[in-house]
Amino acid sequence: MFKCIAMGNLSVVLVSGGLDSAVTTSIAAAIGEVALLHVNYGQKTEHRELAAFNAIADYYSADKRLVADMRYMKEIGGSTLTSSTEEIPKGDLAREGVPSTYVPFRNAQLLGAGVAWAEVLGAEQVYIGAVEEDSSGYPDCRRSFFESYEKAVSVGTRPETFIKIVTPLIEMKKMDIVGRGLALETPFEYTWSCYSDSALACGACDSCLLRLRGFRQAGSRDPIAYRDQVR
Amino acid sequence: MFKCIAMGNLSVVLVSGGLDSAVTTSIAAAIGEVALLHVNYGQKTEHRELAAFNAIADYYSADKRLVADMRYMKEIGGSTLTSSTEEIPKGDLAREGVPSTYVPFRNAQLLGAGVAWAEVLGAEQVYIGAVEEDSSGYPDCRRSFFESYEKAVSVGTRPETFIKIVTPLIEMKKMDIVGRGLALETPFEYTWSCYSDSALACGACDSCLLRLRGFRQAGSRDPIAYRDQVR
Repeated sequence: MFKCIAMGNLSVVLVSGGLDSAVTTSIAAAIGEVALLHVNYGQKTEHRELAAFNAIADYYSADKRLVADMRYMKEIGGSTLTSSTEEIPKGDLAREGVPSTYVPFRNAQLLGAGVAWAEVLGAEQVYIGAVEEDSSGYPDCRRSFFESYEKAVSVGTRPETFIKIVTPLIEMKKMDIVGRGLALETPFEYTWSCYSDSALACGACDSCLLRLRGFRQAGSRDPIAYRDQVR
Repeated sequence: MFKCIAMGNLSVVLVSGGLDSAVTTSIAAAIGEVALLHVNYGQKTEHRELAAFNAIADYYSADKRLVADMRYMKEIGGSTLTSSTEEIPKGDLAREGVPSTYVPFRNAQLLGAGVAWAEVLGAEQVYIGAVEEDSSGYPDCRRSFFESYEKAVSVGTRPETFIKIVTPLIEMKKMDIVGRGLALETPFEYTWSCYSDSALACGACDSCLLRLRGFRQAGSRDPIAYRDQVR
């Protein structure tokens, strides 16, 4: 179910280079112009994700693109996603509680830059491809967080600024996200979801498994190459 | 009037290196240990402010200090404070509306890093020396913004994380802030408020004038050197 609301024609979209943010870009691009924001925050797959971002931005011929350096997040630490010494455990997403890949308050920091850029550009939406269910356990992926953050945006920006935080995937399952992307011709071949920083996706980490299952359940085939024949 | 609340003994303090953040550091340091966070965001006085931060951090023997690079804010633009081409107008603070020195959604971005660091350190407060009255016109310096942001923090961090956004100066006038700093032995001699990036403060920009008036009204003398004899 979707609520139809009036949208300005320029949107900032947070694009990690993963599957969810690529579909989110497709959704925003179907409505109007997109300004694409990518953040390097010292994650293990930084170079691979940046390459994915650029390929997606090229696909959408996005003139407005910004790569923000927030590598201080790696210095702050607190996550296996940015740690130089700790590995990302397998089966982590299935655990109870907050997964070790949680990067403290990351989405607030990404949104902060997105909102600032939107205010300068005059964009009226900031899209983020967060998913509450599949990422359960990430506190900053909950709908209630985005609603709360949107209120802070409303109070903390110019009186004439009205920016909505748009989370089109928030209630969707991976198979539905894949399905939506297929319908919108999301360039899945350019996306990168794997936790490892290698030429080919591993097909074995939680993120690969979630993605592969999504394609399988959507009755489709993931177009990216995997290290082993896993599909 | 101050409400007494139970405080954990470690606080993150956002320290620009200006007068207000120095007094805020004194207030937090009087209660417990401080972890000091400074941000380079491409402001004109970046180098001068960083030097002030380090001097203040040394004065407080702060082992926990973090300098975060958010220079993407200069790239986003929208402020004379970060512009390479536009000057900061004089008499800007006295104008109606949002001053040209407003950096879009800056405080949200600074707080984002502060909260993330606090969550990793187990700190229960993030102090920010924002002042609503003297900076009137900055939407992200209003009490209502900080209250709203604190709610987003509560929802967007781990269930066991409880972080308060503390704004001890929010309702104070500059003369009272100076007075509080004098009482707490804030090292004013290390602070930098001037909008110009020079060895000596200009004594003529809005920020210098506000500061000088604060010291005058507090019946004291600003210990920093000015280019001309302005005191």
